[in-house]
Amino acid sequence: MASDTVTMDKIVALTKRRGFIFPTGEIYGGLGSTYDFAHYGVLLKTNVKNAWWQAMLQERDDIVALDSAILQHPKTWEASGHLAGFTDPLVQCLGECKRRFRADHLDEGQTTCPVCGGELSEPRDFNLMFETTMGPVKDAGATVYLRPETAQGIFVNFKNVLQTSRKKPPFGIAQVGKSFRNEITPGNFVFRTREFEQMEMEFFVPPDEAPRWYDYWKQARFDWYVELGLRPDHLRLREHDPDELSHYSSGTADIEYLFPIGWSELEGIANRGTFDLTQHSQHSGEKLEYFDQQTKERYIPAVIEPAAGADRATLAFLVDAYDEEEVNGETRTVLKLHPRLAPVKAAVLPLVRKDGQPEVGREIVDLLRRHMQVEYDEGGSIGKRYRRQDEIGTPYCVTVDHQTLEDRTVTVRDRDTLAQERVAIDALPGHLAGRLAAPWRSPKLG
Amino acid sequence: MASDTVTMDKIVALTKRRGFIFPTGEIYGGLGSTYDFAHYGVLLKTNVKNAWWQAMLQERDDIVALDSAILQHPKTWEASGHLAGFTDPLVQCLGECKRRFRADHLDEGQTTCPVCGGELSEPRDFNLMFETTMGPVKDAGATVYLRPETAQGIFVNFKNVLQTSRKKPPFGIAQVGKSFRNEITPGNFVFRTREFEQMEMEFFVPPDEAPRWYDYWKQARFDWYVELGLRPDHLRLREHDPDELSHYSSGTADIEYLFPIGWSELEGIANRGTFDLTQHSQHSGEKLEYFDQQTKERYIPAVIEPAAGADRATLAFLVDAYDEEEVNGETRTVLKLHPRLAPVKAAVLPLVRKDGQPEVGREIVDLLRRHMQVEYDEGGSIGKRYRRQDEIGTPYCVTVDHQTLEDRTVTVRDRDTLAQERVAIDALPGHLAGRLAAPWRSPKLG
Repeated sequence: MASDTVTMDKIVALTKRRGFIFPTGEIYGGLGSTYDFAHYGVLLKTNVKNAWWQAMLQERDDIVALDSAILQHPKTWEASGHLAGFTDPLVQCLGECKRRFRADHLDEGQTTCPVCGGELSEPRDFNLMFETTMGPVKDAGATVYLRPETAQGIFVNFKNVLQTSRKKPPFGIAQVGKSFRNEITPGNFVFRTREFEQMEMEFFVPPDEAPRWYDYWKQARFDWYVELGLRPDHLRLREHDPDELSHYSSGTADIEYLFPIGWSELEGIANRGTFDLTQHSQHSGEKLEYFDQQTKERYIPAVIEPAAGADRATLAFLVDAYDEEEVNGETRTVLKLHPRLAPVKAAVLPLVRKDGQPEVGREIVDLLRRHMQVEYDEGGSIGKRYRRQDEIGTPYCVTVDHQTLEDRTVTVRDRDTLAQERVAIDALPGHLAGRLAAPWRSPKLG
Repeated sequence: MASDTVTMDKIVALTKRRGFIFPTGEIYGGLGSTYDFAHYGVLLKTNVKNAWWQAMLQERDDIVALDSAILQHPKTWEASGHLAGFTDPLVQCLGECKRRFRADHLDEGQTTCPVCGGELSEPRDFNLMFETTMGPVKDAGATVYLRPETAQGIFVNFKNVLQTSRKKPPFGIAQVGKSFRNEITPGNFVFRTREFEQMEMEFFVPPDEAPRWYDYWKQARFDWYVELGLRPDHLRLREHDPDELSHYSSGTADIEYLFPIGWSELEGIANRGTFDLTQHSQHSGEKLEYFDQQTKERYIPAVIEPAAGADRATLAFLVDAYDEEEVNGETRTVLKLHPRLAPVKAAVLPLVRKDGQPEVGREIVDLLRRHMQVEYDEGGSIGKRYRRQDEIGTPYCVTVDHQTLEDRTVTVRDRDTLAQERVAIDALPGHLAGRLAAPWRSPKLG
């Protein structure tokens, strides 16, 4: 079957059934657009985040890591403009249903409730930051906010990083972590949730180099998704129109993916200019600038920001990998995930639960598990066990059979080609490591 | 010098100076006992968390992962008892200073302010959960809490995990993530902060096996710290007295570390019995129990919980690793971290910044960085560069010298022994991987 058989409902059902993603608080009726990542979801999302760190940090010289607190100093949000301006226009139905809508999501000029036909209120600005109180009493100084983005935690640490890291522009600060936005209308599974995880990097450059680095990061980030297996024809780079741009941005582009809900943003790359460091300089009185010892120039660096969503990246990898195929007259559901992203790298399956096969299977598991996430499964027919592993995207199934007990070889089954190969147990760790590290492209590309 | 030269001030200074940990919002005057992890701190803490996942998940068959939302359904905290009972007794000075204190931290019978001598208020219960509002209006149903522990996210997912994971007791669910407690008196650097990261695992067992598993997990978790290099004489397991136990616990022990502030809790292991699942069953109406197909028995599993703090574990590893030594008449500060935990595994240092040495250095960096976190440094004298790497705990320095250009060998310097060894560049990835994976014990053990 063609890959366009994938729907959001199928992804929701598979991820629930196989333990990737559960609705939060389901035993209490759920919490509306909030999700908990279950076993395979944790492993998959962790692999996505690790691949991001590998590309942004480990394989480069010019980026350092940061993990700033979710509860930042409240002045941070004054300086960044979030306290005054991070709002959505909200209208409420004054009729029967009392529902709330984003004014900018209603048809232009719409004055009645799209649900019950009641009258709609005037729009009012609703700040999307979650507010809470730090310390034992509620007073003005104790009001703090759950960060709506990780980026500002980077800007307020710019000076400390500059002083301790011995980096100079162009250099970047990268961060992965939870952010919170009190969206009026979250939805589409984990695509838009009020609690979500970001992978953001702020790249500080001499202002005259900003256009060049903006182009560089658009391309580098696009390529990252392709390298991890997303089909290029399901990805596009969409440059914002001038009227879409934030007031501080001289250029923003979205990397969009063709989700079942249509083309939607995976990641934004923005040329933020000197806006952020200037704002924090003015509000703090600190000089957030760089002094170039060689040219004797002092300047506020411009910032190029690639900001990705870890949850929606995970969703995109799931959607792109999902497939249904006819195999021996039956439909198999399979996640053709890049082996680097696959939650489980290898499953060890004794053909029968006797004749010493489980013991050898256990031995193989012990051999492999120091190097990779493996699973042992002896329950049910071998066909059924293959299907289970296909559904969670395990690239290799290692089967112990009668011959194994004679010559210490096993079969290795390839998830995508279904080809089986005989490999000596002793050679297995090296064999699998080599195949897992090999270049990979989506088998859906044909 | 002896290892007892370590003080909290030295750790705070080193971690600030070398970019491990910064005070949050320092340009705005700080936010009081809130910290941001900087480059080396992120790498170190990530290695701590990965070592925990490796031991709890990858190397076992009986534990699955979870990453539940920070904002859980509010009924979760009703059922868990946090809404009614997660409080500290707070007294306020009614005199000049208006300071607030935990009543249970004041000397018994103390009725006057220990700072200004003013009269103290009666104690009142102060709930430690941070409260916020979800959705666009404040009404009763919209009040949610930042989770004060990750554990409850595990209990409310028990049924979904049981249905999808094909595990049966004894089995565990493990989770790492941020929690928030609005402590009246946080302090001691990252030892007690209002925002902190936990590594918790709930292990579900048949009730009659609970005492055995309680003993098992006390030992297993103690051993984990020792394997990662903490000196056994700086660790102890302290069983709670009966009057310290929570009402639901039939046994709790703390793994304590000898911090510069004295023996303090690193991790708690608790036998929580059937309390949590019983509570959530009653509040949700769901049957959170296990039906054993073989014995036809239906029961609510008991829970053994090892709950560790990722920040204080990171602090303990830093403290234990810190040393000052006389080398060639100078004092070197060195972090003798377990190589698995070290933020940077190898630094590549050309002896001079000419004669082709930087080019070969870059080549070696490219060779190594796919496998491990490496750093390249060509600035300053070689002695100064060694000291920099010692201060961040890099186990191996790879030095490119004149001979390298002739025979393609480099020297590998050992952080702890200061021994230097000549190794061929081609053999370097294997050489370092072998040494990094080898068993390790703290050189402070002599």
